[in-house]
Amino acid sequence: MKNGLYHESMTLEEQMKEIAQRGKQASRALTSLSTEQKNQCLLAMADAIDLKKAAIQEENKKDLIAGREMGLSSALLDRLELTENRVASMSQGLREVASLPDPVGRLLDERIRPNGLKLQKVSTPIGVVVIIYESRPNVTADAAGLCLKSGNATILRGGKEAIHSNQIIAKTMVEAAKAVCPEFSLEAIQVVPTTDRKAIPVLLSLSDYIDLCMPRGGEGLIRAVAECSRVPVIKHYKGVCHVYVDRDADLEQAAAIAVNAKTQRPGVCNAIETLLVDDSVKADFIPRVTQMLWDKGVEIRADDAFREALDLSKMNSPGKIEPATQEDWDAEYLDLIIATKVVSGVSEAIDHINRYGSGHSDTVVTTNEQTAKKFMTEVDSAAVYWNASTRFTDGAEFGMGAEIGISTDKIGARGPMGLEELTSYKWLGFGQGQIRP
Amino acid sequence: MKNGLYHESMTLEEQMKEIAQRGKQASRALTSLSTEQKNQCLLAMADAIDLKKAAIQEENKKDLIAGREMGLSSALLDRLELTENRVASMSQGLREVASLPDPVGRLLDERIRPNGLKLQKVSTPIGVVVIIYESRPNVTADAAGLCLKSGNATILRGGKEAIHSNQIIAKTMVEAAKAVCPEFSLEAIQVVPTTDRKAIPVLLSLSDYIDLCMPRGGEGLIRAVAECSRVPVIKHYKGVCHVYVDRDADLEQAAAIAVNAKTQRPGVCNAIETLLVDDSVKADFIPRVTQMLWDKGVEIRADDAFREALDLSKMNSPGKIEPATQEDWDAEYLDLIIATKVVSGVSEAIDHINRYGSGHSDTVVTTNEQTAKKFMTEVDSAAVYWNASTRFTDGAEFGMGAEIGISTDKIGARGPMGLEELTSYKWLGFGQGQIRP
Repeated sequence: MKNGLYHESMTLEEQMKEIAQRGKQASRALTSLSTEQKNQCLLAMADAIDLKKAAIQEENKKDLIAGREMGLSSALLDRLELTENRVASMSQGLREVASLPDPVGRLLDERIRPNGLKLQKVSTPIGVVVIIYESRPNVTADAAGLCLKSGNATILRGGKEAIHSNQIIAKTMVEAAKAVCPEFSLEAIQVVPTTDRKAIPVLLSLSDYIDLCMPRGGEGLIRAVAECSRVPVIKHYKGVCHVYVDRDADLEQAAAIAVNAKTQRPGVCNAIETLLVDDSVKADFIPRVTQMLWDKGVEIRADDAFREALDLSKMNSPGKIEPATQEDWDAEYLDLIIATKVVSGVSEAIDHINRYGSGHSDTVVTTNEQTAKKFMTEVDSAAVYWNASTRFTDGAEFGMGAEIGISTDKIGARGPMGLEELTSYKWLGFGQGQIRP
Repeated sequence: MKNGLYHESMTLEEQMKEIAQRGKQASRALTSLSTEQKNQCLLAMADAIDLKKAAIQEENKKDLIAGREMGLSSALLDRLELTENRVASMSQGLREVASLPDPVGRLLDERIRPNGLKLQKVSTPIGVVVIIYESRPNVTADAAGLCLKSGNATILRGGKEAIHSNQIIAKTMVEAAKAVCPEFSLEAIQVVPTTDRKAIPVLLSLSDYIDLCMPRGGEGLIRAVAECSRVPVIKHYKGVCHVYVDRDADLEQAAAIAVNAKTQRPGVCNAIETLLVDDSVKADFIPRVTQMLWDKGVEIRADDAFREALDLSKMNSPGKIEPATQEDWDAEYLDLIIATKVVSGVSEAIDHINRYGSGHSDTVVTTNEQTAKKFMTEVDSAAVYWNASTRFTDGAEFGMGAEIGISTDKIGARGPMGLEELTSYKWLGFGQGQIRP
């Protein structure tokens, strides 16, 4: 087992507790590193990954061979592979994180009380963050780099098919950091050394040491983690996003936004799955948007009113359209398929989105400010747009510089999570001997 | 059962789902109430509580009679009783909440992206908040009022011994609000209508409808809730707070702070339980603080070095002092008892606090800015003070106007929780037709 610290004779419970305690210890040490030290570590890590590219690809080959033997699909094998480009983008990512401002120590609030006590609310690291992810080994470097910059220790649990890759990436990173910064603790980045599935609930029961878990992957993985965790989890299950075309929409703009949000990259969580159309504009809008969607190869699952607004004989080159079923309203296709529905107005659109949506990203297209305000206030999603594509919900598009995920939770971070979203806060009280009378 | 909406034939699961769904529906309606409407509701609730005082005390009497029959302790019966003063302070609390600024709709961040898309991060209600508490029925009005002002629907689950009191308080509140504001939903404040203990895990499994749970009470209750919950929980288990007297402390100030933090109100979570003394000042400081603690009737549990620094024959009026055991370091006495220990300096003090403390409130007394900075950075607690009593960790003392609890968690709110801490946020994107290229 990794670096000889774990004995085969230890139980799974003992192993996980050992890892969690070491993580907590390392997180304490991280709080006293300066911004310069953290950046120095990140740059050394990036250089080491470039330098040890061959060794990393060698370990990755072991995973690929084992994966082929296990019969992994070619899609999974593709995600698993660390090509030259992917190794380079890991080190490039670390250099970018080094160049971003330190999210720790920001002054969030300040007040001086009548007794002279000065209170400051300042951002702090969260502590120990467990990241659970699937087959992409580049997440190891990306997540650990973001956590280091935000002062958090990480415990990484990747897919078992990527264990060799994940271990050498983490080892390369911590050794490089230690070499340039002796105060850096080797346990600031740990890879769970066992591929036993039972390790996850054991690890996530250790709430005395672990402060947060972020699962990244499919809905099944995330539900399983949320179900067993005793530590806070920040997650998003899926992205069922909507565009609502209002009666006061600029219909050309509306069609462009809907088509972009569906087709620009259909496989991602901020692509839309459902298009809602105000009844008053259906005759004008539906034939127009349908043709544009078909031209992009999109299959439509439409309610009756939507289909009735189409005269198929008048369409240039008809594509696929089928009646929508109940299941279509909460489906996350991640594909060139869209559900469509005619609604009676903004209130029905809001109700539909709050009922079937996943609280991720939703857009209203309208020229009516009051309608937009109502939609933006009442739609209960992480990001709500007025006349823009849902595809902007993304750390880079939000100017965060880097992203560790997108949260649809409401406690802690919501929406794209960059460095600031990996922090907590504390209150500092500066006194001159104040006591409570 | 309450208002005839629950049938005896419904299972516990069906009942809880019904409550949770109604809560979610009510929370949607709350988002469109204006600040003025919310304040109008709060003031009407306050007036109604004053007006219906006799009826509320009548229902409270039922609980008191049943409580005496169940053999509740006199301390519990005292907490349960709604005296004239307590009823008045419920209505007064609601009026105060009405006078505070609306925590929803605050602009937390704003950025305009190169493509012209304007992004605003604004505070929003959390949604549906479950409050689980023990015998004090006044929590019903306090918690529901704070949640209403922050736009959240509440599901209240008080102690079974207070069910009649809790139900009439909630009923009085919602009916008064509905009378002045027809858009107010009666289900914005619900009391769980059954006293069945199994209702709690069932309710807290409904993460599709419930956004947050806040348990308030003893450690046992809070652990049980955290253990079974599938929704995020914000909590604090206990308050094991410390004062550390550094080698560079003003010893007179240090003694005053330690004695205040221990004795000003020993039964609360922000009172200290442990005093740590730097070895270099033990000869001067220990006899002085010991006499002051004894004068206040405090019993001391001291490590060897602390006891050896005392010459009992030279003390004026010796009080109780005993050797500390391992259990003393994480004990929450909530009483006139203090654990004391000599440490080798600020690093050992920080280690001790991070190991045994509860992450609540801790103080360093020193004139050395560098020592203070180290302590404030490295102690991982919600509130860290320099030369001030830990007793200031409190919503009113922090200028929050009202407090629903104190969190020792690091995801979501940390430290005293006022109205702002009962909000989440969302991102609003204002576009002019922007799409992703």
